[in-house]
Amino acid sequence: MTTKREQIIETTCQLMEMQGYHATGLNQILAESGAPKGSLYHYFPDGKVELGLEAIASSSRLIEGRIRAVMREHDDAVTAVTTFISTLATQIDISGYRAGGPITAIALEAASTNDLLRDACHQAYQSWQDAFSEKLKQGGFSEARSHRLATMIIAGLEGGIILCRSQRCPQPLLDLAEEIETLLLCGR
Amino acid sequence: MTTKREQIIETTCQLMEMQGYHATGLNQILAESGAPKGSLYHYFPDGKVELGLEAIASSSRLIEGRIRAVMREHDDAVTAVTTFISTLATQIDISGYRAGGPITAIALEAASTNDLLRDACHQAYQSWQDAFSEKLKQGGFSEARSHRLATMIIAGLEGGIILCRSQRCPQPLLDLAEEIETLLLCGR
Repeated sequence: MTTKREQIIETTCQLMEMQGYHATGLNQILAESGAPKGSLYHYFPDGKVELGLEAIASSSRLIEGRIRAVMREHDDAVTAVTTFISTLATQIDISGYRAGGPITAIALEAASTNDLLRDACHQAYQSWQDAFSEKLKQGGFSEARSHRLATMIIAGLEGGIILCRSQRCPQPLLDLAEEIETLLLCGR
Repeated sequence: MTTKREQIIETTCQLMEMQGYHATGLNQILAESGAPKGSLYHYFPDGKVELGLEAIASSSRLIEGRIRAVMREHDDAVTAVTTFISTLATQIDISGYRAGGPITAIALEAASTNDLLRDACHQAYQSWQDAFSEKLKQGGFSEARSHRLATMIIAGLEGGIILCRSQRCPQPLLDLAEEIETLLLCGR
C-alpha cells in the first residue's frame, strides 16, 4: 500500500516530468495527490526543493532498478544494452509520449539555479551509468572504455527520449540502439 | 543593430534556455528586454506561444549555421563531426554551464502540452540532423546510415549537454566525441 508521503512524491515525479520543476506548484501537487495541506508541510518541511530532491531520488532508484533488471536478464552485455534501449522506445510509445526522462526537466532547469537539485540529478545519472558500466566490464570492455561507453549510452538515452517525444515516434531510440550495437561489436 | 523585435526574441531565448518555457513569464521578458509593454503585443499578438515559436526558430537557425560552418571547415567528415562536439564541450564550460541546449527545456515541457511548440522543436532537431547527415553522405556513408548516425549525434549532443551541465564538467561531451569517432572509423 502506498503511504500518504509516497503518494505526494509520486505526484511530484509525474508533474515535474511532464511540465518541469519551476512550473510545478505546491498547490497543484496537493490537489492532484489528494493530500491535505498540513501533511505536505508535515512530511516536507523544507517545501518544494525537498520535494524535488525526493522526486529525483525516487526516480533515480526506479530507473536504476529497471536497468539492473535488464542487465541481469541477458548474459551478453551487447544484447542487454540494446534490449534496454529498444524496450524503452516501446514503453515511451505506449505512454503516448508523455513519459520518459523523469529528471531531465529538473536537471535542465536546476543546472544554473540550485546546486542541491543539480547535484542530485548528477548522482542519479551516475547510478544509471554505473549499472551499464559494470555490465560492460563483465562483457570484457576495459574499465576506462566501459565508463566512456556508459556515459555515451546515458547521453544517447536522455537525448533520444527528447527526440522521440518531439516527433511522437520511437525511431530515434531504435536508431540509437542499432548504432550502439555496431559500436559495441566493433571492438573491445 | 538589433531591432526591438529581435531584442525581445533574444531575451526570450535566454530565459527559456535557463529556466524553461512554463516558468518564463511575459512580465519577465518585458523587464529583461527593456521593451515597453505595448511593443510586445504589437510584435507578438498571439502572446507567449508565438514568442516561444520565434525563440525556437531563432535558436534553430543559429545552431544550424554553427553546425554547417564547422562541417565546411573540415574536409574529412569524421574530423568535422568530432570537432563540433569537442568545441561545444569547451563553449559550455566557458559559459559557466548556464548555456547549451537552447530548445531542450521547451521540447520537454511542450512535448505533452502544445503541438505547435512540439512540432517547431522537431523541425529544429531535423534541420541540425540534416546538416550532419549531408556531411556524412559526402564522407561516404550510405543515405540510411548517415541519417541514423546523425540521429545518434543529435541525441548524444542533447543528452551530453544535460550531463555536462548537471556535473559542471565538459567530460561527458568529450567522452561522446571519442566514442563517435570510434564508431565512424569502424566502417562505412
